[in-house]
Amino acid sequence: MDQKVNKYQELLTDLLTKYAGRFNQNANNIKTQPIIDTERNHFQLLRLGWDNNRYTFSVVFHFDIKDGKIWLQENRTDILIAKELVELGVPPTDIVLGLQAPEDRAYTGYAAA
Amino acid sequence: MDQKVNKYQELLTDLLTKYAGRFNQNANNIKTQPIIDTERNHFQLLRLGWDNNRYTFSVVFHFDIKDGKIWLQENRTDILIAKELVELGVPPTDIVLGLQAPEDRAYTGYAAA
Repeated sequence: MDQKVNKYQELLTDLLTKYAGRFNQNANNIKTQPIIDTERNHFQLLRLGWDNNRYTFSVVFHFDIKDGKIWLQENRTDILIAKELVELGVPPTDIVLGLQAPEDRAYTGYAAA
Repeated sequence: MDQKVNKYQELLTDLLTKYAGRFNQNANNIKTQPIIDTERNHFQLLRLGWDNNRYTFSVVFHFDIKDGKIWLQENRTDILIAKELVELGVPPTDIVLGLQAPEDRAYTGYAAA
């Protein structure tokens, strides 16, 4: 279990770091930062900053690792990020779409909890 | 500088842990979790979960430590959290209200950047 959790921690860190780099290629004042808490197993990508008198504070992705599974809790993009996890080697049975209603998760092709 | 940053890291961790405990006294399914990234110096309190067929995903507080100062980037409460930092011993010159427009910060009583 611990070895699997370590693997998922590294995988999520790499994934969020990759997307932070992509988002930060835009040359405006909104910065994208990964937030990595391997002690509590929370992983987030956050965009924030002031641009043209407008404040942006927006969570792009948020994952938790709970009981050896990756929970997707937020996705404000049209990127199929759970599918990307599968392509990176995570079995669908280890992925929970937490942002879907619990009673709908049985039909997602991923784990229900 | 490093000693000061360590002190602010501990202070923010304690503060968010305290508020997580308070929010979690509510007996519903929305859980409040601190996210602590001392490597990148991001500190967040997040509420999330399903309750009565409704999904909550809401950042309560978010702080960054940058250049030895504490930046308040989000506060979705009516708690005067910057004032609380001052009461905990942080000088107002080490606090930046990042969620205020840069040109307004000179009038906040806190640091402008």
